[in-house]
Amino acid sequence: MRQYIKENRIKGTRLLQKMVQEPSTRGEESGAQAVVIEKCRELGFEMDIWEIGGDGLAGHPAFCSDRSNFKGNPNAVGIMRGTGGGKSMILNGHIDVVPAGDVKDWDREPYSGYIESGKLYGRGSTDMKGGTASLLMAMEAIKNSGIKLKGDVIFQSVIEEESGGAGSLATVLRGYKADAAIIPEPTNMKLFPKQQGSMWFRISVKGKGAHGGTRYEGVNAIEKAMLVIDRLRKLEMERNERITDPFFDSIPIPIPINIGKIQAGDWPSSVPDLAIIEGRMGVAPNETQEDAKREMAEALSHISNADSWLEENTPVLEWFGASWLPGDLDPEHELIKVLSESFKGVKEREPLIEASPWATDGGILSKVGGIPVVVFGPGVTETAHQANEYIRLEDVFESAEIIALTLLKWCEISE
Amino acid sequence: MRQYIKENRIKGTRLLQKMVQEPSTRGEESGAQAVVIEKCRELGFEMDIWEIGGDGLAGHPAFCSDRSNFKGNPNAVGIMRGTGGGKSMILNGHIDVVPAGDVKDWDREPYSGYIESGKLYGRGSTDMKGGTASLLMAMEAIKNSGIKLKGDVIFQSVIEEESGGAGSLATVLRGYKADAAIIPEPTNMKLFPKQQGSMWFRISVKGKGAHGGTRYEGVNAIEKAMLVIDRLRKLEMERNERITDPFFDSIPIPIPINIGKIQAGDWPSSVPDLAIIEGRMGVAPNETQEDAKREMAEALSHISNADSWLEENTPVLEWFGASWLPGDLDPEHELIKVLSESFKGVKEREPLIEASPWATDGGILSKVGGIPVVVFGPGVTETAHQANEYIRLEDVFESAEIIALTLLKWCEISE
Repeated sequence: MRQYIKENRIKGTRLLQKMVQEPSTRGEESGAQAVVIEKCRELGFEMDIWEIGGDGLAGHPAFCSDRSNFKGNPNAVGIMRGTGGGKSMILNGHIDVVPAGDVKDWDREPYSGYIESGKLYGRGSTDMKGGTASLLMAMEAIKNSGIKLKGDVIFQSVIEEESGGAGSLATVLRGYKADAAIIPEPTNMKLFPKQQGSMWFRISVKGKGAHGGTRYEGVNAIEKAMLVIDRLRKLEMERNERITDPFFDSIPIPIPINIGKIQAGDWPSSVPDLAIIEGRMGVAPNETQEDAKREMAEALSHISNADSWLEENTPVLEWFGASWLPGDLDPEHELIKVLSESFKGVKEREPLIEASPWATDGGILSKVGGIPVVVFGPGVTETAHQANEYIRLEDVFESAEIIALTLLKWCEISE
Repeated sequence: MRQYIKENRIKGTRLLQKMVQEPSTRGEESGAQAVVIEKCRELGFEMDIWEIGGDGLAGHPAFCSDRSNFKGNPNAVGIMRGTGGGKSMILNGHIDVVPAGDVKDWDREPYSGYIESGKLYGRGSTDMKGGTASLLMAMEAIKNSGIKLKGDVIFQSVIEEESGGAGSLATVLRGYKADAAIIPEPTNMKLFPKQQGSMWFRISVKGKGAHGGTRYEGVNAIEKAMLVIDRLRKLEMERNERITDPFFDSIPIPIPINIGKIQAGDWPSSVPDLAIIEGRMGVAPNETQEDAKREMAEALSHISNADSWLEENTPVLEWFGASWLPGDLDPEHELIKVLSESFKGVKEREPLIEASPWATDGGILSKVGGIPVVVFGPGVTETAHQANEYIRLEDVFESAEIIALTLLKWCEISE
């Protein structure tokens, strides 16, 4: 494996570069998906390419999407069929990327795929086209080394991960199951058997309009929103104090409540009468989304006994847009053992095993599909969703090698 | 006067209604201005209608506008020429109105001019087409009663008051001066010899982006903006503790700092890296705008010794858009005496004399034009800039009568 991957670094790099150069933001996934599908065809996989939306998708309790139309931007599954008798493995990567943000913050064009000092730059390089490239390189290495596996390897390139996982849910509902799954999100090559779930919330805080010169005649919605934010910070602290799982020991805030947006007012001289806060609430691997939602609703109903305005004008809480189920695999599971051994074989040290600070499609594959899932991949979270996102190519190659070794052990080599 | 105004209430009401029914937001002032000009022509005034922008307007230190083009939306001045030998009077009203805001907050269409229970509804009814209507009714009453005045009455219907006073500045630069000026902004028929000035500010607060699941790797610009807002509240307190002028005794916050807008973030799952606050800073009648600006800059440079992020990333302060000079007339001035007597003649009680909680074009007429200015008019500030803005018609008629009596005394009746 090592030899093949080493000799085919340029080929792997070009594949990743082509994927990054296709901007696959929501509703625009088809271009990057085409690059992936072309590679699968080249490798002779059995292909299943379909526009999601059927199979009772929208009616499923775990379905979460405000997108009305998935036409033209398919899910793609490529199967490297085994000879039989081995355990099967799903390799899952999402093709969608978050928006590039302010182009001015980027040193180069956001989808450049520019390479410098061993780093490949561009939106999606780390989250998670680098991971997907490592999957394809691993499968290619096995295939082109003339090795046949007993178990099936089911490669999935899905849409909608960044917005709630409808793409992965669609694979489960279409019948794709396996004995294990690896999702190469950017864990910096740590193993994450447990994943934080998350949900998006919107809180509307009422004020009372007035002319800014007589602002005391109004109630400033921004000031009231600040009390709400203070309460959310307190709730975050309360929730995190309860987390005792040692897998979260090195994570400063295991299940954060992120305040991602605020918007209030439309005229500098007026007292704003409405503030809208949007954010993301982390869900612990061992709690349900419903319990977390209830806890936030409870907190908002008693923000401050001292504030009679908020007492009478309870902030309105909505859950909207994205939502990801938490994942919770036993760290003693065989999958963790096999992946750890492969890691040691390549990196010559024990891997770090932690809980993920963010949600992935692993929640859907495990909670809905009943599939044991580990999240493991190249790239560091710090650069994901940021300007100048990049991935170290060396990490992509090492991950490819570790995944290839894992497949050989998990699915077994057919003589 | 009383008799004429009483008999012509319906005529006056229709005039105001027509003015309100012409939405004269910024850049759309011409329709309402046409209604005013038509009335001036009917009364036989000497008319001066011009598109502002010449006379060195844009280069003047008091010029404040981000509008590039005033074409098609003229200022209008109508002069009721006196026979000579009397004191002159400027009557100044602005024709521009602030945006209607969310139409859903209005019980009726925002420019309906609907009348119910003696109140006329619509954006601009109080701020300040009701006041302008009272000026026109006062002048009509004098004219149609066959009275000739010695002094000139210079009626001005100006644009741009809501955005910094470029319209009134243009009248001064065109040479319009007088021995006194009345601006019938909604004072609820109190006399305001002193007016708060004001300026718009924008504060950009930097954060550091990160994925919401690892929010501790970023710096939330919203949380830092909250510290900035706390500092502004403290600055407001410090500044208002210094105000000892008894004219502000009944005003809870004589020179408020209003936080009018905040905008931060564009994705619920990301830590926002920039928050932008916009607002309005009040300026005391006896201070300069420059001193007030310096004080805010000073405050922002030392927000919190405990916060090293803000220490290293000082919020960026800009002054933009609107700016109004404060006004400061001696309460013993003859104009206040004459207006007070007229008020007593109509209302049979002493008027309340206070400082205005907001800025008007009075600052420009007094500080740039050197004209003694009092702000006095019908309507209450509470409804200005709000949904369901209205004015009590009775107040418009009474104001018209008080202004008419003031003109008779100030400009003197010619035999």
